[in-house]
Amino acid sequence: MTELRKHYFLDEYSLIAIERSRRPSDFKAERVDLPGENCPFCLGNEEMTPPAQCVCEDGWMIEDTNEKIIRSWDIRCFPNLYPALTPDTPYVRDDDWDKSCGFGFHEVVVETPCHNRHPADLSDKELRLLFKVYADRVAHYYSKEGIKFVSLFKNFGKDAGASLSHPHTQIICVPLIPPKIKRELTAINSHDGCPYCDIVTREARSKRFITEDDYWISFAPFASRSPFEIWILPKEHTSNITRLDEESLISLGLMVRDMLQRLNRLLGFPHYNYIFFQLDDEGYHL
Amino acid sequence: MTELRKHYFLDEYSLIAIERSRRPSDFKAERVDLPGENCPFCLGNEEMTPPAQCVCEDGWMIEDTNEKIIRSWDIRCFPNLYPALTPDTPYVRDDDWDKSCGFGFHEVVVETPCHNRHPADLSDKELRLLFKVYADRVAHYYSKEGIKFVSLFKNFGKDAGASLSHPHTQIICVPLIPPKIKRELTAINSHDGCPYCDIVTREARSKRFITEDDYWISFAPFASRSPFEIWILPKEHTSNITRLDEESLISLGLMVRDMLQRLNRLLGFPHYNYIFFQLDDEGYHL
Repeated sequence: MTELRKHYFLDEYSLIAIERSRRPSDFKAERVDLPGENCPFCLGNEEMTPPAQCVCEDGWMIEDTNEKIIRSWDIRCFPNLYPALTPDTPYVRDDDWDKSCGFGFHEVVVETPCHNRHPADLSDKELRLLFKVYADRVAHYYSKEGIKFVSLFKNFGKDAGASLSHPHTQIICVPLIPPKIKRELTAINSHDGCPYCDIVTREARSKRFITEDDYWISFAPFASRSPFEIWILPKEHTSNITRLDEESLISLGLMVRDMLQRLNRLLGFPHYNYIFFQLDDEGYHL
Repeated sequence: MTELRKHYFLDEYSLIAIERSRRPSDFKAERVDLPGENCPFCLGNEEMTPPAQCVCEDGWMIEDTNEKIIRSWDIRCFPNLYPALTPDTPYVRDDDWDKSCGFGFHEVVVETPCHNRHPADLSDKELRLLFKVYADRVAHYYSKEGIKFVSLFKNFGKDAGASLSHPHTQIICVPLIPPKIKRELTAINSHDGCPYCDIVTREARSKRFITEDDYWISFAPFASRSPFEIWILPKEHTSNITRLDEESLISLGLMVRDMLQRLNRLLGFPHYNYIFFQLDDEGYHL
């Protein structure tokens, strides 16, 4: 018996094949701490990357200059050396999209100076700083002319697409709303009230519920697209992380860490992706 | 410099990163002939699979019965032992899609009795038979009540998702038109004439052109979604392979083999997918 499950309100389907389901042990991965020599993201190797546009040092947010590269830092953000999009490409307007255009930004957020310090192990203080930086950098890019969508995501481990093992997050900023997100927004707007707000209520009482706090709820979605998929939704309708107050932002960090620790306990040390689905549009639900 | 390229007429985009482009040698794979012992698709191991629903033997199309398993064959089709969809699941109508339902068919087409005989090496005669079987099986499933979409695809090699190395194709039949295909059909229908017919004309003169014969044209699409992506389009508007006359079907087989041989020459022995995008709807372009 298999099940074709429909997304809560979108025209998207997942095939759930019970006969093909596997035990958690089939997904187990070992923790492999790779050496940090010659790692361009490690403390001391700052000249191996482009100059940093934002460096957190002792609670300050500063940046590298031509004269001075900052060599003591907690978090370091710089343009990707192999960018998917670049700001120096001419910016072409929406109606001209078939004209080729690679305008945008692609930034790397190095989460910690320590090569083997992984997200699930961060202290409350480190976590708070990281999520503060996430929100700050997203706000920074929303303010850029022509940018309509800011993608914040983390690939952890080779199987999840990470080419470097040093903990880092990526930010890709594009001058259009991706078609999939546009369809989602259209569906939300044509719904009677925000469908994600309904989902929060519904999944809080379901067998797919994982945990909750004052601000957030986490659960396994009905039509998962991959094994062990988890959604974290704000209980109060919010469109993106720049709109969160401090308490709520800190809670999000704690909940993400909690989910990563649970996955580690269950699966060993799995490779994973986490992605922020967000939009600078009041109607959207983070 | 990167380029954001739009699909010819759909709201889909590909990011082409020149800086990240690699040489063909970076994709090279070695030919690994795996042993055929205990391979359920090999001649002599017929009892390791469900009974065949279609067996080609000396030009005849016959099937296994409870009394007799056919042990001499050229091509053998049977239900997947680990099906993504099953016909015994209750068939639920369209408007009830959020009720779970896994109705459908999932068939394996074993292309040759020989474990290490690969598609690029098939003789004209073997190729003709294989494409005849493709068309026959697709027609068979289009005739089933409730089936709206028949997906015919081949995964070759582990990196392309094949779990068994013996050459085989899969057929998955679902009771709905996948949302992506539905959007494509809507875009085709709202276009002034078939856009794919325009693309045939346009790409025949482009630098992305690969080859053509009386019936087919092959080219690298403008907004490729993966490296070395190739499209093969019929010059005459046709919706699916069951509509092709014999000459045209044979030509398609020859062109697919030609493309595989070219990829092998360039890339060694790459893992790949080929997929038939087709619909039982006159408006669609195969």
